[in-house]
Amino acid sequence: MSKHVRQEDEGRLPKYYSISQDVIRLIRSGKLAPGMRIPSENQIIEQYGVSNTTARKALQELTSGRWVVKIKGKGTFVHGTGVVRSVDRILSFTRNMTEAGFKPSTKILHQSVLRKGYSALINGRRYSMDGPVLKLHRLRFADKIPMMLEVRYISLALCPGIEKTALTESLYDIYRNKYGHELTEIHQMLSTYMIESEAATFFDLHGPVCGLLVDGVTFCGREIILEMEKSIYRGDRYSFAVRAMYPTTDEPMAL
Amino acid sequence: MSKHVRQEDEGRLPKYYSISQDVIRLIRSGKLAPGMRIPSENQIIEQYGVSNTTARKALQELTSGRWVVKIKGKGTFVHGTGVVRSVDRILSFTRNMTEAGFKPSTKILHQSVLRKGYSALINGRRYSMDGPVLKLHRLRFADKIPMMLEVRYISLALCPGIEKTALTESLYDIYRNKYGHELTEIHQMLSTYMIESEAATFFDLHGPVCGLLVDGVTFCGREIILEMEKSIYRGDRYSFAVRAMYPTTDEPMAL
Repeated sequence: MSKHVRQEDEGRLPKYYSISQDVIRLIRSGKLAPGMRIPSENQIIEQYGVSNTTARKALQELTSGRWVVKIKGKGTFVHGTGVVRSVDRILSFTRNMTEAGFKPSTKILHQSVLRKGYSALINGRRYSMDGPVLKLHRLRFADKIPMMLEVRYISLALCPGIEKTALTESLYDIYRNKYGHELTEIHQMLSTYMIESEAATFFDLHGPVCGLLVDGVTFCGREIILEMEKSIYRGDRYSFAVRAMYPTTDEPMAL
Repeated sequence: MSKHVRQEDEGRLPKYYSISQDVIRLIRSGKLAPGMRIPSENQIIEQYGVSNTTARKALQELTSGRWVVKIKGKGTFVHGTGVVRSVDRILSFTRNMTEAGFKPSTKILHQSVLRKGYSALINGRRYSMDGPVLKLHRLRFADKIPMMLEVRYISLALCPGIEKTALTESLYDIYRNKYGHELTEIHQMLSTYMIESEAATFFDLHGPVCGLLVDGVTFCGREIILEMEKSIYRGDRYSFAVRAMYPTTDEPMAL
């Protein structure tokens, strides 16, 4: 019923475009999750009462927008996320996007120096950085699509003068190339986060969408905290890949 | 459903819901710790400029979600029942809950045999199991709070007769003790999922809540798939813990 109203509202747009927008809405709402099959050409023809040319164009629109991927002889599946992030690799956004075939870019939203330092609770443990700490708020893009909103807290004791350099590139590169710091370990806590109001504006989202909140701490040596972060990944574009193997790290295997 | 559409059109969630989410965020960040008093009805009215009906609904939302407990004549206090799940350990729900201090239990919702097998796309790769496969739909509880809704797809070739056994305990225990299968590796894909309508009913949720969707494949030997799963973890109760170290697995470190 609301679909009918929506179609009338969009009456001036090409039919194939309205259909593709319907599917994108389902992907964004999570009703069509990554890996799920989307309606076939024949199902679109039947459901919307359109020609096969229109149905095919709708599917092409979704494919070219990287919302879905067509697998020969199997069907068309939600790509949705566009990006899979491996959580067991120390990987910069820049490299992650490049590997996924996107062109990364960055917009700095705000930066300031916290004299008193920063601390956060991650996986039940409190991690603290002494001041001064550079608080850097950035929006990260892939092919001009806003993907991730991040706040990085960088030790100015370990990276003196970093606040005066250009900070639109990979910070990991700057840490290594300019300061000689090699990352040794990352601890992160992944939680869900309803992206709405102000955050939704940054992502150019119209309704509330699930996001992944990452609270992280990065070490460049035993117990030496180089930076901490608090980032929001949009859940309609991202999924996280995990592998666990036996034996697992230093803990006994718990069956 | 129609409620969700209306919210999307408005681009925001009901006021009482946003207020309850604010409090949940404080609980999760550790700023409001278990046993601490949360704002009273009057404080909410004053702080947010809302009606007493809205303030009461926000408190009801928190109470029914068991985030807080109301003590007559004393106030409302943080109950605190979050769980951290380590993604780099092969860990059963049962053991995870026991370690977190909760009493786990399980309700079987449905079970059936899939003659044709099962397949799913996980982190860009398609994994397939030949039939027959036992499809087992269960709801998992911690201290009687519904925490996770899961569908497990179990190889009946590797676990003959498992469909006739009691399946309310840890499947990992059954695989090992009854069939002698040791788990060797797990690949999982974590995505966000808006929990609403039917799924929300299982979790006894009143508004849409972000969830974590886990698509997984479990091996009990090189390329031998023992089971696959599709589970929804409620995002208001769960966070996932991740560690990445240098050098990382078999891949070169990507800075």
